[in-house]
Amino acid sequence: MSKRTINFYAGPAGLPMEPLKKAQDELLDFAGTGMSVMEISHRSKEYDAVHEEAIALTKELMNIPDNFKVLFIQGGAHLAFGMIPLNLLRKDRKADYITTGNWAEKAYKEAKLVAGDRVREAATTKSEKFARLPRPSELQISPDAAFVHFTSNNTVEGTQWHEFPKTDRPYICDMSSDIMWRPMDISQFGIIYAGAQKNLGPSGVTLVVIREDFLEMCEAQDLPSYLRYRIHAEKNSLYNTPPTFGIYILRNILAYNKSIGGLKTIEANNRKKGELLYGCIDKHSGFFKSFVTEKADRSLMNIDFFLPTDELTDTFVKEAKKNDMVGLKGYRDIGGIRVSAYNAVTVDNVKTLVEFMEEFVKKNG
Amino acid sequence: MSKRTINFYAGPAGLPMEPLKKAQDELLDFAGTGMSVMEISHRSKEYDAVHEEAIALTKELMNIPDNFKVLFIQGGAHLAFGMIPLNLLRKDRKADYITTGNWAEKAYKEAKLVAGDRVREAATTKSEKFARLPRPSELQISPDAAFVHFTSNNTVEGTQWHEFPKTDRPYICDMSSDIMWRPMDISQFGIIYAGAQKNLGPSGVTLVVIREDFLEMCEAQDLPSYLRYRIHAEKNSLYNTPPTFGIYILRNILAYNKSIGGLKTIEANNRKKGELLYGCIDKHSGFFKSFVTEKADRSLMNIDFFLPTDELTDTFVKEAKKNDMVGLKGYRDIGGIRVSAYNAVTVDNVKTLVEFMEEFVKKNG
Repeated sequence: MSKRTINFYAGPAGLPMEPLKKAQDELLDFAGTGMSVMEISHRSKEYDAVHEEAIALTKELMNIPDNFKVLFIQGGAHLAFGMIPLNLLRKDRKADYITTGNWAEKAYKEAKLVAGDRVREAATTKSEKFARLPRPSELQISPDAAFVHFTSNNTVEGTQWHEFPKTDRPYICDMSSDIMWRPMDISQFGIIYAGAQKNLGPSGVTLVVIREDFLEMCEAQDLPSYLRYRIHAEKNSLYNTPPTFGIYILRNILAYNKSIGGLKTIEANNRKKGELLYGCIDKHSGFFKSFVTEKADRSLMNIDFFLPTDELTDTFVKEAKKNDMVGLKGYRDIGGIRVSAYNAVTVDNVKTLVEFMEEFVKKNG
Repeated sequence: MSKRTINFYAGPAGLPMEPLKKAQDELLDFAGTGMSVMEISHRSKEYDAVHEEAIALTKELMNIPDNFKVLFIQGGAHLAFGMIPLNLLRKDRKADYITTGNWAEKAYKEAKLVAGDRVREAATTKSEKFARLPRPSELQISPDAAFVHFTSNNTVEGTQWHEFPKTDRPYICDMSSDIMWRPMDISQFGIIYAGAQKNLGPSGVTLVVIREDFLEMCEAQDLPSYLRYRIHAEKNSLYNTPPTFGIYILRNILAYNKSIGGLKTIEANNRKKGELLYGCIDKHSGFFKSFVTEKADRSLMNIDFFLPTDELTDTFVKEAKKNDMVGLKGYRDIGGIRVSAYNAVTVDNVKTLVEFMEEFVKKNG
């Protein structure tokens, strides 16, 4: 087998080796069926065991209370941007959206398509290119908001809510780029959703964790069935054929995450990776310049920084690639370098990158 | 490697061996990247090549004219049931739906949720349990219908339109269970859609072939972006992260289909399989009783028949399983036996089943 490349893609992103190897081993013969897991009915007992285990592992790893349902839906965060207002905001409810980046703004705009002025912007840092999160004093949350929508990690800009926005309204949160990065209290959320392709598995599966009172709020009887959260919940995500192979890979990854000690271990690894990367950036602050302006808002998932010139940036990306590290080019609107260091990126991977960065400064600083 | 089971599941269903083996071989190292195809960015040049090839092969195999776009969307036929009326029928357009089975009826009901009485039933054979297709004289298609929706193959009931319903209105067709089963004239369709999990690949990918004038008819500016066909078309199905692994498997399968001679070869195989199966059923018409009442309407994809008693049916399913043949139990509303013989089921697979059927009649007839 050839050497594994160190994968810093922003998503679809690297996955842990062991669950992928398992998928490879049993790709033509799953659970002794003589068939691929892709080839078996979603109503078969063999697939059902995978489906139930994926749900149970999600509940266990995230410590999800009993009054929540775990759903697997398709369409990524983009379809969720639409489903949330279609299910919750078509009559007279109001909601507040905090726009802290490219993705948060999309969620806000999509909700406005459905609910117009009843969707309000509770805060934005757009005038500062989203280079920091809003301060508590900047949040304007209305008492009549059915929910406050926010994006826990801003993939493009590299900010992350380490303490969630202060409000007594329930949250709806897009956790696509930092789901399961650490243990947290789930009870404060009405809905959590996450495209799988960063921390959970391949693209094509969206994890939705929804509280029962939010399910009850979904009143859209005239909405096509696939768009109704209640139908997915009533049918345990088997209303229609789910993306079975994607859920199977997700199951493999969650089982692996459990085997290494769950979210506590994963959090410790992520914090160590952040210390190494930001440590190097801050040590060479004359060379590397962080995009994010407030240290407290720095993301441990996406680390954005600039080099002194665009030429050096290009050289950095090219040299890294020669050293088997890919995915480091910054997002088109921002430029510079973006290191995406999701759960599957190991501490050793980051050490290799940091050594490369040190060397690069030595040569070019 | 253990013996491959003969897979007669109705979907997700069996896939050809060669493309699956290719996926297994390169699961950890795709195209020399040192990463799985699941792990690479949907904006990378390596994934882009897969995406473009999947589109090109679809066009080539189906002989799709230039005024059509090929899209890959998520959510299966169920989401398409909703997207079609949401894109085309929210204002004043009218449409006719032909309901010929379980799935055709779902498409009709979902459209009515959006457009109410402007969605009309052009014909139905429900009073006969959908055991035949409507005759030409039974079709009531209105001149003001923007399209006529039909389901080319009825997976549950085992009927198939060998000649499409006569009308001068454009078709929208759910081809989920017989897409690419033979060459056909695409120009008469406004939209063709198909969940991949029968003839094309794993669940989680929906193929949509849409004519430009139908794209132009999509006027839903206030619809969330993911639900708008025009956005998917403008962005070449890369508006958001597509289900990359599913599209990769579909690409492998289409490349294999091309290598064996394309849809002409596939059609010949399917006709041979049908002759063998219906030949056996008709030969033993005192023992096997076809569910479908008109021979001309018999499906070559799903073959439904009854045995003399429920006990014999159970025995048939169990004995077949002992002989490494699975997925033969009839759909719950109909009972009996259903043989799903999609493109990946070989003539040899069907010969094995027919030998088993002959033996079964000898023992129990």
